[in-house]
Amino acid sequence: MKVDGVAYRTVWPGADGASVEIIDQTLLPHRFVTVPLHTLDDAARAIRAMQVRGAPLIGVTAAYGVALALAADPSDTALANAAAVLAATRPTAVNLRWALERMAAHLRTVAPADRAAAAFAEAGQIADEDVAVSSAIGDYGLALFREAASKAPGRPLQVLTHCNAGWLATVDWGTALAPIYKAFDAGIALHVWVDETRPRNQGASLTAWELGRHGVPHTVIVDNAGGHLMQHGRVDLCIVGTDRTTATGDVCNKIGTYLKALAAHDNGVPFYVALPSSTIDWRLDDGVREIPIEERDGREVTHITGATAGGGLETVALTPERSTAANFGFDVTPARLVTGLITERGVVAASRAGLAAAFPDQANA
Amino acid sequence: MKVDGVAYRTVWPGADGASVEIIDQTLLPHRFVTVPLHTLDDAARAIRAMQVRGAPLIGVTAAYGVALALAADPSDTALANAAAVLAATRPTAVNLRWALERMAAHLRTVAPADRAAAAFAEAGQIADEDVAVSSAIGDYGLALFREAASKAPGRPLQVLTHCNAGWLATVDWGTALAPIYKAFDAGIALHVWVDETRPRNQGASLTAWELGRHGVPHTVIVDNAGGHLMQHGRVDLCIVGTDRTTATGDVCNKIGTYLKALAAHDNGVPFYVALPSSTIDWRLDDGVREIPIEERDGREVTHITGATAGGGLETVALTPERSTAANFGFDVTPARLVTGLITERGVVAASRAGLAAAFPDQANA
Repeated sequence: MKVDGVAYRTVWPGADGASVEIIDQTLLPHRFVTVPLHTLDDAARAIRAMQVRGAPLIGVTAAYGVALALAADPSDTALANAAAVLAATRPTAVNLRWALERMAAHLRTVAPADRAAAAFAEAGQIADEDVAVSSAIGDYGLALFREAASKAPGRPLQVLTHCNAGWLATVDWGTALAPIYKAFDAGIALHVWVDETRPRNQGASLTAWELGRHGVPHTVIVDNAGGHLMQHGRVDLCIVGTDRTTATGDVCNKIGTYLKALAAHDNGVPFYVALPSSTIDWRLDDGVREIPIEERDGREVTHITGATAGGGLETVALTPERSTAANFGFDVTPARLVTGLITERGVVAASRAGLAAAFPDQANA
Repeated sequence: MKVDGVAYRTVWPGADGASVEIIDQTLLPHRFVTVPLHTLDDAARAIRAMQVRGAPLIGVTAAYGVALALAADPSDTALANAAAVLAATRPTAVNLRWALERMAAHLRTVAPADRAAAAFAEAGQIADEDVAVSSAIGDYGLALFREAASKAPGRPLQVLTHCNAGWLATVDWGTALAPIYKAFDAGIALHVWVDETRPRNQGASLTAWELGRHGVPHTVIVDNAGGHLMQHGRVDLCIVGTDRTTATGDVCNKIGTYLKALAAHDNGVPFYVALPSSTIDWRLDDGVREIPIEERDGREVTHITGATAGGGLETVALTPERSTAANFGFDVTPARLVTGLITERGVVAASRAGLAAAFPDQANA
């Protein structure tokens, strides 16, 4: 998508053919800075520090990380080591493992001398496929938005989203935000309620930033506000992403998603989840019981970074010095609370039958 | 309650007999500063700026504000003006109007020359009654906690609370936190999950501070986390306060309370609301439809103040410069989601019958 008129992806090969460029998302919305990655460690650090985040983008960045590792050492040992190092960066995202397995399976069949070039090509292919998948999700979501807008004539369609499942979380377009961009570009009047999404505020910092740069009307709200808005008829539909989806349609997304799904259910508001099928973990039946939830540093809760009036970035403490904090990265929304899953093959029911019918090749693999 | 070994209330008459002292709660948890109020405008400003907040404390501070006004001018006009100015400071809290009506009704019967002294005495009486009410709520809640703890032998009772309904929100003891203090003092092992409560972070800044100063084990979490904890059996009960309660048992409390009540209901976790009967608005039947929700400055969402590493206080921006924010102060939790109301006359059902049976004198007034 565009940033001040210039088209960007979130990850792209460097001009030197031996590096990869990313946007440092930890500096958004205050500064727009691109960063080169030269080594496996650079890529692992970028994922771990959440300079890149979002399930699809993590997968593509990890794929490029394998390429960077093989450029330095194309041996089988280096390939295995790269996959192990990258897999350990974030425990929850299934795309990460999916991309690493695809890279390893492909590269094991390539002679070491050709591996670096093959790895860059394969990572580029994964990136291009991700863009096609996001665009397809956007098109299927657009049809839903068109129908919803027809039920709300004379006023903008009111959409609520949580966290950032925008183009910044993928290579381009996004997942949950792809239908928003497609609808906006198609001239459908809409307005987006953007959950700030504590503790890392990816809604307030990333979703608000990318919607704003594209010109989409939006309002930032605290995570506490969505239920009130739904009680008062001020949300027509919710749409979020997912980092991991069970074969039964449970979705594991940013902490707090479950609370919005409960409110949507209580108020008859449709709750859609947009996902590339790469987030589906076909081995899992029960998201709440089976998906391990990443616990991150409590400092993300006790401290926050923002821009001072002078324009600098400052980190401030929000809690008493003697108090500690717990920091759970994700929660699981049971399929019973999900109106539909918007995939690259269409909108399907959040159920084993719905997913298996759309992805028989994957479900029975 | 105690602050570093010294017993405090949240509002008390100044030593000069013509002023009132408060704790500036906007500086907590980073600085503990007391502030004298000398005039009506001082009192109105303290309420509006949320130096004092919490429904009971707002009411008592407003009562003292009337006394400060009458010390300067004991006329009927001044009395009416003081009530009007103070009533306009916060639109939602019903205690504010209750306290002002009680002061006006009493003082109209007093000769102007005696009014200032009578007003200070009546405000002091309201403060003492508030302490007695909070203590009674704590005692009734203690019995509930004792029963809950007996079902969780061998581990601390896990309690979740939202916002600050502690001694800082009342004159002493608190409402939702009163049972926690009574249980802790009685030797019941417990641990409190403290919702940070965006946008003003009264959980992270006030609840965590006062629990910590009293020695109660607690952990700060983002508002998004409670549903996940409840899904995994890590919350035994929720307890919150209310700023306004309908005759049918709907409760209007800090924005986001409704989302926690939905999660508690979905996971079979008891959800209690602690309240003095002064928060009950007997004229109201339907909280969602009838209670006006205060909309505050969006800057409370887009900016936040905290302590820098150097110890200073700094305000930082969290959102893109071009994005705006909406800021709803409260939401309404329907009675159907409330397990019980803990009042100064016992624990009652969140229903017209439950409240009317406990407060027949008020219900039929």
